[in-house]
Amino acid sequence: MPVPTPDYRLYLVLDPKLCAQTGIVQTALAAAQAGAGIIQLRAPYWKKRELYECAIELKTALAPFKIPLIIDDHVDVAVASGADGVHIGQQDLPATCARAMLGPDKLVGLSINTIEQMKNVDPTIVDYVGVGPIFSTATKPDAAAPIGFDGLAQLMKICPVPAVAIGGLKANHVKEIFKAGADGVAVISAICGQKDPNVAAQTLFKECPDTRLTR
Amino acid sequence: MPVPTPDYRLYLVLDPKLCAQTGIVQTALAAAQAGAGIIQLRAPYWKKRELYECAIELKTALAPFKIPLIIDDHVDVAVASGADGVHIGQQDLPATCARAMLGPDKLVGLSINTIEQMKNVDPTIVDYVGVGPIFSTATKPDAAAPIGFDGLAQLMKICPVPAVAIGGLKANHVKEIFKAGADGVAVISAICGQKDPNVAAQTLFKECPDTRLTR
Repeated sequence: MPVPTPDYRLYLVLDPKLCAQTGIVQTALAAAQAGAGIIQLRAPYWKKRELYECAIELKTALAPFKIPLIIDDHVDVAVASGADGVHIGQQDLPATCARAMLGPDKLVGLSINTIEQMKNVDPTIVDYVGVGPIFSTATKPDAAAPIGFDGLAQLMKICPVPAVAIGGLKANHVKEIFKAGADGVAVISAICGQKDPNVAAQTLFKECPDTRLTR
Repeated sequence: MPVPTPDYRLYLVLDPKLCAQTGIVQTALAAAQAGAGIIQLRAPYWKKRELYECAIELKTALAPFKIPLIIDDHVDVAVASGADGVHIGQQDLPATCARAMLGPDKLVGLSINTIEQMKNVDPTIVDYVGVGPIFSTATKPDAAAPIGFDGLAQLMKICPVPAVAIGGLKANHVKEIFKAGADGVAVISAICGQKDPNVAAQTLFKECPDTRLTR
């Protein structure tokens, strides 16, 4: 099955621990119903079997929405579970290795924090970048230094692929993110663990541009 | 390049943290020179880039010895680095997924702790098993319950593939391990972090049968 072209405007990163109250699949569905166009599963504290089984469950649940499911870091889990792609950081496997294992049709996303890293993005290998962190955040304590809206705008000037901004973003930041040139906002705790993830996602999505951007 | 047929008698599991004094590659070479016939790289505390780069370095260093290099858990790192196989636990990706990604020629090893798990070993998928832990060990605090020599002997009766025993093993245990029917001993701290890893490996290897066992 071909990977759907992602609508990057609202990108949900699912953190299973934060979703304990609502449930992982339920949180994903609530966000998808509210307009999230791409969903990543990120559970660095899990063994692979649990990640693999959860990915399969999510893939099935999300099928009617035709939005891609991305696996954080683990290319092998992405391949084994039939997910639509992988998101890798600068300390994960090289993007070329991920692309070789996934084939030409799946999505490869890459985290970017600096101008140097952005200059090295090869648009024939990488489908999109996650740019940040915009603000510091408790969800990812080992993240790089925050870049703010100005840093984002600088990076977007030389960005060769679609980009989502990430890191401590809430609904009141969304307009500024798009103004800086990004194609989407990625959130974890602004949806995961919220009392009503569907309402939280709706509130975020309302701040996004009406139509997806194209490059 | 085809994967060499392993001599399972002395199986080194490299723990980079424990090898700090001697060095990782130096420890691997010291063990290979002393008779280790298969080497696994296991660093659950590392990001994948570091694991990948270390695997490539080890693969190059070990090439003259024609002994296989196995990667713990991460099938993607094994594929990307050109290692000779992967070792998976019961909570890692299913063996069938590992086999599908690695192709028919690479090695797939599986950790076994119970009769139930041993009964489920498919010899068309799994090349060898790691049986244990024989004793409890500080190197793997999340390991299953120790099975002792008797438990090993019970499991070996129904083992369909070559087996290495693992878990707190030292030179004085080696004869008992082979008597119980195993094809090899796997060690971490009996070599890694020892003042002279070459002497430590020689001491272990001297206790092994003179020729490799075949099934």
